[in-house]
Amino acid sequence: MTTKIGIIGLGLMGGSLSLALKKSSSQYRFIGLDHNSKHCTEALSIGLVDEIVQTLDAIKACDIIFLTIPVDGIIAVANQIGTLDEACTVIDLGSTKEKISESIPENLRKNFVTAHPMTGTEKFGPTAAIDNLYEGKVVVLCDMEKSGRHQQQVAEKLFSDIGMKLVYMTAKAHDRHAAFISHMPHALSYALANAVMKQEDPESIVALAGGGFKDMSRIAKSSPNMWEDIFRQNKTNLIEAIEAFETELGQCRKMVENEEWTTLHTWMQEANTLHDIL
Amino acid sequence: MTTKIGIIGLGLMGGSLSLALKKSSSQYRFIGLDHNSKHCTEALSIGLVDEIVQTLDAIKACDIIFLTIPVDGIIAVANQIGTLDEACTVIDLGSTKEKISESIPENLRKNFVTAHPMTGTEKFGPTAAIDNLYEGKVVVLCDMEKSGRHQQQVAEKLFSDIGMKLVYMTAKAHDRHAAFISHMPHALSYALANAVMKQEDPESIVALAGGGFKDMSRIAKSSPNMWEDIFRQNKTNLIEAIEAFETELGQCRKMVENEEWTTLHTWMQEANTLHDIL
Repeated sequence: MTTKIGIIGLGLMGGSLSLALKKSSSQYRFIGLDHNSKHCTEALSIGLVDEIVQTLDAIKACDIIFLTIPVDGIIAVANQIGTLDEACTVIDLGSTKEKISESIPENLRKNFVTAHPMTGTEKFGPTAAIDNLYEGKVVVLCDMEKSGRHQQQVAEKLFSDIGMKLVYMTAKAHDRHAAFISHMPHALSYALANAVMKQEDPESIVALAGGGFKDMSRIAKSSPNMWEDIFRQNKTNLIEAIEAFETELGQCRKMVENEEWTTLHTWMQEANTLHDIL
Repeated sequence: MTTKIGIIGLGLMGGSLSLALKKSSSQYRFIGLDHNSKHCTEALSIGLVDEIVQTLDAIKACDIIFLTIPVDGIIAVANQIGTLDEACTVIDLGSTKEKISESIPENLRKNFVTAHPMTGTEKFGPTAAIDNLYEGKVVVLCDMEKSGRHQQQVAEKLFSDIGMKLVYMTAKAHDRHAAFISHMPHALSYALANAVMKQEDPESIVALAGGGFKDMSRIAKSSPNMWEDIFRQNKTNLIEAIEAFETELGQCRKMVENEEWTTLHTWMQEANTLHDIL
């Protein structure tokens, strides 16, 4: 029997999800919805979806609906979609979770699973989709006790089928952790890119770029549409994480200014220990 | 006719250089010197060098001598090696160039070529050596007018033979550029690692690490021995680069605090433009 999977948001995340699910089973039919008509045409033509629909009502008949759009859009959809069949599972893949978890209408709360796959690339749009984006990566499942038992099982099976490692935590803990592991590092990468671009001769500087700089500036390519939204949703945690970073970098600068080389050496050794747990 | 190549410093850079040169020609004999006797044994046993010597005097008979040791060591060797045959070429691969260029005794200045290959990995020691570390990467040749014509030609040929792109600039310009493209990013990576490690539950945070965090924290594995030295040698430029970064990150934090989302969006778009030139 065919399971109908709706994907709202036909970008990197939604497109890659379709490719991964297709690899895991031939029993799915994919129905797409996106306000960007070019993305709809592309997603159809490269086979990410079997069908495009134009309205939320038209996608409500799906057994499973993925929301792979920015966080603000997820909250809007949750509040506009109306009632759902009690067997319907809606899984959002937003990058922040607490505001989403709080914003889901009470009568739909059991339908929803709020998840965050810790993966992505700096590219976007349906043509950026790749079939192994999720494989071997962590997906954080948040506030799972608020989801229906059926919905929990559906989500756990789908994420396991595409090779993900399941991690459970509260939406609140997720947002704080994600600020440190993902959102603040994006702020650093954007700031690094801008610091270099504002120098007198950025071309000559960038001509020397080795692997370290390329790695550290890669996520500065990320979509401002998506990241403005994440920074807004996770404002408080993000500021805390940036301040923790600023404290460390300020200490480093002062040790260099004051020529405290032994202390600096120890500080670098402490940083090395990250890789004992990574 | 066999060319004798001396390598002082049998780590990642020196070992990889030997592997790359061996691929480019069978006419070389490699003679190694390192104060770490374990590294000498390893380098011999995995074939990075054909012979180990114990003194600077013993390596002076080489046609070409590479200095692949930290910057302080390069300056020490330049001042301890004494006189050299006028056909001898000494090429140092130190990560900062101005202090080295200034420290070479006047009577040896034509013998020396001061170069900086913009490559590396976070690993170290002879067993970290790989034969394609230099391939396709940039090497910055500094203050080349101070090197002898013969030495210029030797260095240009060797670096071209192993597939490097040659870029010329003054040692002063190099150090400023390197502060932005390499040294400050290392400070960021160390600071990021320490900011995460000092949180209450670093293991839970790191369990969520995706590609972005792994990329940005990779160079925080780098050797404190090497990087303490680089930070010391390039102190002034490094502080300037850190301050330029701090200004950008501070602006980002304030835009988030003040909820200036449109300005933040523009700032992110500006960062995106780095990749038009990278």
